[in-house]
Amino acid sequence: MSFDLILIVPLMSLIALTTAGLSLYQLVKADAGTGKVREIAEAIHEGAKAYLSRQYKTIWAIVIIVAIALAFVPGFEGWKASLAYIAGAASSSAAGFIGMYAALKANSRTLQSVISSGINKSLQLAFKSGLITGMCVVGFGLLGVFLFYAVYGDPHLVLPFSFGASSVALFARVGGGIYTKTADVGADLVGKVEAKIPEDDPRNPAVIADNIGDNVGDVAGMGADLFESYVASMLAAMIIGYLLWEKFPELGLGFIILPLVIRGFAILASALAAFSVRLGARLREPSYVLTFATILSCVLTALFVYFISQIVLGPSLGLRITGVVVVGLIVGIVVGLTSDYFTNRIWRPAQSIAHASQSGPAITVLTGFSVGMLSTIIPIICVAIAIFTSYHILYIPEYGFLSGIYGITMADVGMLSITGIVVAADAYGPVADNAAGIAEMSNMPEKIRDDLDVLDSVGNTTKAICKGFAISSAALTAIVLFATYAATTKLEFSIFSFLNPYAFAGLFIGCALTVLFMALVIQAVSRNAFRMVEEVRRQFREIPGLLEGTAKPDYAKCVDISTKGALKELIAPGLITLLSPVILGIVPEGKIILGGFLAGSILIGFLFGLFMANAGGAWDNAKKFIEFGHFGGKGSPAHVAAVIGDTIGDPFKDTAGPSLNIMIKLIGIVALHIVPLIMVS
Amino acid sequence: MSFDLILIVPLMSLIALTTAGLSLYQLVKADAGTGKVREIAEAIHEGAKAYLSRQYKTIWAIVIIVAIALAFVPGFEGWKASLAYIAGAASSSAAGFIGMYAALKANSRTLQSVISSGINKSLQLAFKSGLITGMCVVGFGLLGVFLFYAVYGDPHLVLPFSFGASSVALFARVGGGIYTKTADVGADLVGKVEAKIPEDDPRNPAVIADNIGDNVGDVAGMGADLFESYVASMLAAMIIGYLLWEKFPELGLGFIILPLVIRGFAILASALAAFSVRLGARLREPSYVLTFATILSCVLTALFVYFISQIVLGPSLGLRITGVVVVGLIVGIVVGLTSDYFTNRIWRPAQSIAHASQSGPAITVLTGFSVGMLSTIIPIICVAIAIFTSYHILYIPEYGFLSGIYGITMADVGMLSITGIVVAADAYGPVADNAAGIAEMSNMPEKIRDDLDVLDSVGNTTKAICKGFAISSAALTAIVLFATYAATTKLEFSIFSFLNPYAFAGLFIGCALTVLFMALVIQAVSRNAFRMVEEVRRQFREIPGLLEGTAKPDYAKCVDISTKGALKELIAPGLITLLSPVILGIVPEGKIILGGFLAGSILIGFLFGLFMANAGGAWDNAKKFIEFGHFGGKGSPAHVAAVIGDTIGDPFKDTAGPSLNIMIKLIGIVALHIVPLIMVS
Repeated sequence: MSFDLILIVPLMSLIALTTAGLSLYQLVKADAGTGKVREIAEAIHEGAKAYLSRQYKTIWAIVIIVAIALAFVPGFEGWKASLAYIAGAASSSAAGFIGMYAALKANSRTLQSVISSGINKSLQLAFKSGLITGMCVVGFGLLGVFLFYAVYGDPHLVLPFSFGASSVALFARVGGGIYTKTADVGADLVGKVEAKIPEDDPRNPAVIADNIGDNVGDVAGMGADLFESYVASMLAAMIIGYLLWEKFPELGLGFIILPLVIRGFAILASALAAFSVRLGARLREPSYVLTFATILSCVLTALFVYFISQIVLGPSLGLRITGVVVVGLIVGIVVGLTSDYFTNRIWRPAQSIAHASQSGPAITVLTGFSVGMLSTIIPIICVAIAIFTSYHILYIPEYGFLSGIYGITMADVGMLSITGIVVAADAYGPVADNAAGIAEMSNMPEKIRDDLDVLDSVGNTTKAICKGFAISSAALTAIVLFATYAATTKLEFSIFSFLNPYAFAGLFIGCALTVLFMALVIQAVSRNAFRMVEEVRRQFREIPGLLEGTAKPDYAKCVDISTKGALKELIAPGLITLLSPVILGIVPEGKIILGGFLAGSILIGFLFGLFMANAGGAWDNAKKFIEFGHFGGKGSPAHVAAVIGDTIGDPFKDTAGPSLNIMIKLIGIVALHIVPLIMVS
Repeated sequence: MSFDLILIVPLMSLIALTTAGLSLYQLVKADAGTGKVREIAEAIHEGAKAYLSRQYKTIWAIVIIVAIALAFVPGFEGWKASLAYIAGAASSSAAGFIGMYAALKANSRTLQSVISSGINKSLQLAFKSGLITGMCVVGFGLLGVFLFYAVYGDPHLVLPFSFGASSVALFARVGGGIYTKTADVGADLVGKVEAKIPEDDPRNPAVIADNIGDNVGDVAGMGADLFESYVASMLAAMIIGYLLWEKFPELGLGFIILPLVIRGFAILASALAAFSVRLGARLREPSYVLTFATILSCVLTALFVYFISQIVLGPSLGLRITGVVVVGLIVGIVVGLTSDYFTNRIWRPAQSIAHASQSGPAITVLTGFSVGMLSTIIPIICVAIAIFTSYHILYIPEYGFLSGIYGITMADVGMLSITGIVVAADAYGPVADNAAGIAEMSNMPEKIRDDLDVLDSVGNTTKAICKGFAISSAALTAIVLFATYAATTKLEFSIFSFLNPYAFAGLFIGCALTVLFMALVIQAVSRNAFRMVEEVRRQFREIPGLLEGTAKPDYAKCVDISTKGALKELIAPGLITLLSPVILGIVPEGKIILGGFLAGSILIGFLFGLFMANAGGAWDNAKKFIEFGHFGGKGSPAHVAAVIGDTIGDPFKDTAGPSLNIMIKLIGIVALHIVPLIMVS
């Protein structure tokens, strides 16, 4: 293989970051609107800044403590670990921060561009803001891993970079998830139910917190989640490649650098696919445009991999690599489409919930529960098939187990190579949603609001696909981390057996602690929402003229309560995630118990991650289906029942479900960091 | 060891059956009441007979087909398998039939005895009817296994006896679960909600079906479930003992016959403990009386085991056996008490749901969801600890893996040795419930109804404990069957590893299919309830004078719809359970995939079994807590929300949850039956 090829990696990373920079410049230059529109957009921006500044302060306090602690973990060469950890946290934070900034600039500009240039330009503008997040995620991720690998020379030592990203993801995704539902429930319960004012009404003190929440969840949260998967999958493959090279030096460095090179070309594929995003003669529907771009990016990636992997590893191995990358891409797309099928209101499952709503809330909940359960089956079986096909495609008898595991890691690398475009399509969602919200709050004409509703409803499909993609890639990444754990601890097949009672007990403990994590996160939302409800009630009571519209509510106070509460509620589930692998790892037989623990956690986390995301999405869309005039429409008994289903689904799909993505990966990362401790005990 | 000791086994079985017979004689002799009481009791009895006759017809049609098929399965000596299978099905059916008969005779007699002799006699009478079921379960179970082992000489060949019991359990528990909720939902939705007549009103055409339903679920269903666990756990231990003896003939037959002997003495312990059931100076509370009897039976069993196992296996091994039996008994009791804590309205969890009901149905459901999730953690960790402690207590290096596995099976044997008293305490529940229902329907004086309500509320605690016991013993039995599968297929540790992608994929597939089973069972209830609703509406519409009380409804038609529908809805989940192990077992690498499948199924089945039973129980008792006058009492908004929670919980706790007990054991039994097929493929 030609070593020059690796130079493509920093080059492509910089291209990604440049694309992001240029897009941001164009975005900021666009017309931001005037008067009420600008005022609301600025209030949202102010609130988001308050949220981010408090969140980052806490994150960085903890990052510094962990960074110092890491310097003392054996096997990681002291300060090198701290440095990589800080860089990982900084890269993920930067991607999240820039992404949030872009999304908050884009909402009013998307609205303005609908007014001045029509829906096509507006779609492109909203997508551009999403692309900024997407390109930052892949650009910072790839560049960071490349630079640290180039300097440290051993992918093991780069692991703390991934840990840094995971730590930020814990805050952005779990903390952000608690934040967004606190604001949502608080705004709805007091505003809509008690004070009887409409949704998105500026008199509601929690309305700004609610609008920020969408960006917090889908831009910063999803970005940090996929940043973590993107980095961890790449490192896992490089570590397995490194172990192969250590054992069989004749293989050379190809297996180590291939993941980097593939990711470099995949950035090119995503960037090219992004150009296709425009409504044309053939593609009239905005949702088709975004799905087309995603699929185009898959096809281009597969093509690039076909050529590059043959250059790096020779024709036979190259073809096999292409095979597993295609397996990964297919699983990603299939799981995404499954999520769409089970949640989109144009398909039967969500409609069956809407239909059941006519028999009252209990049947609505039961039907949604069944739909959510059924939605997990295809993805779980897909991932199971992906595991053994990709193992088999790359399994080479003379290189043994590690070669098969390398196959699984490369399927994961392949799946996540389209991260750029997936994040772009997802981060588009809250921009369109916020634009529609601002149009509502500033009383725009019907036509403008209809156009924005079209753009907004596209967001739902891409969001569902992206959620499915995020969950399946998180599960596959967690599995890959688990395999890397087994490989680095040199766990033998015969010891790490289902028939070893320690491993089997570990499986059960992993199941129990994942359930505990999930229950704590759901309770966190209830508790924090309660605080928000109290504050909104207080403002309505104590600020004279608020309901009449003559006085302004104290938006900042509500943002502050959401933020503080979310950080406080994060402590218990966060500590469980960070400490349980450490504790289980150092007890007698800990190496085996921890292995079983990881397997149990992944299985339960994957199952419930899918269930919660899809059940929540299906309830949401069943409600929307009724709101479009079916089964009695808005205000009918069926609608009341559907709203109850939707409220139950909210913390499922926006808090607990996505939090599980983070949890199953983070325990794997922590386990990999304590391998040296486990090996001595 | 003295071989005479084995004669204790048939002797104790006959003592159990004699106790059941004498109790039944005393019960039938008791005053059955007159007039309205007798009339209602007879209507319930008629309906139950109709249910049982249709159910048994279907069961026996299938039993005969399976029995013929079994004669052709290699490795089971043809007709010998068929015979054992038929005997297993017949024994379980007989226990269920006699138990149902006793329960249906007991309801009006319990009511009469409250009137004539007061609460103490009445408690004893109701308990006596439960004891009949309990003694039939252990008597038939132990006698059957003993006789077939005595004749066939190899516990492997007795496995079809257990399969026969499982087949009946599938109908009684899954079919019965669908039946009972169909009737319940149908009666409530049309009667209470639409026609606005009270619960248990004789004008409601579904009321008899509903009353039968309680007996179907808690007497026949629970009885068949525990019969299956009781028999399967004993056989698994005997098979492992047999494999030990094959490999190390110097060990003798002690390991094979010990489970039988222990179970024999445990019957004695249960019978003695049953005598303690009376309200005395010290034990004023009926619920303490039943809990005391259960604990007394544990202590006596442990004492007996301490002496017997030393006689059979010598002092050192005997002590170890006592150790694992105690582990099993403790786990059973702890899981039972956990269920009580999380569901009983006197404790915090159920009250927290009641409190949350004030914020509406969505928060009620979310709180119940969290409570249900949290309730699974202690039981799962308890079972995990039980697995490796009992493995370790009995692990003997020179006998290897099998000796450790024998420890786990003996923990299960120990746990289930108190089956008699547990079933008695559980089957007591519907008798007290029906007695209270009949008192309501026949307008008995306040005092009588209050006394019966006390007896009825005791039923709730014992029911919760028994449910927890049933789930944990089902899980441990499924684990034991899984270990027996590994032992008989001679699966090697190194092949059946977490690192084998086939085993890992099997784990995922097991998870997916268990979820599918669960979703199908929940949907079955919705669909069948819909049929029932239609029929009840039709009768109200078409039978003149029904609502005015001048005409009688067609109870039999409703019973028939529940029964037919339940059997029809059973087909899909039943086939999944029976066929998936066969299909997975015969594909390439099937031995490994099936092993992983069993592990995944057990984990998910155990988790959801606990979750559904406890969440359902907690919602139910939260509603009752409100009905006792808290948070606004009956009819308040909190009550409306709590009723929604309870309706969601109904198919969880009475259908899907208990069905999972059956499923995880049945796939293990089926897997053991196809071992010869797997070994040749």
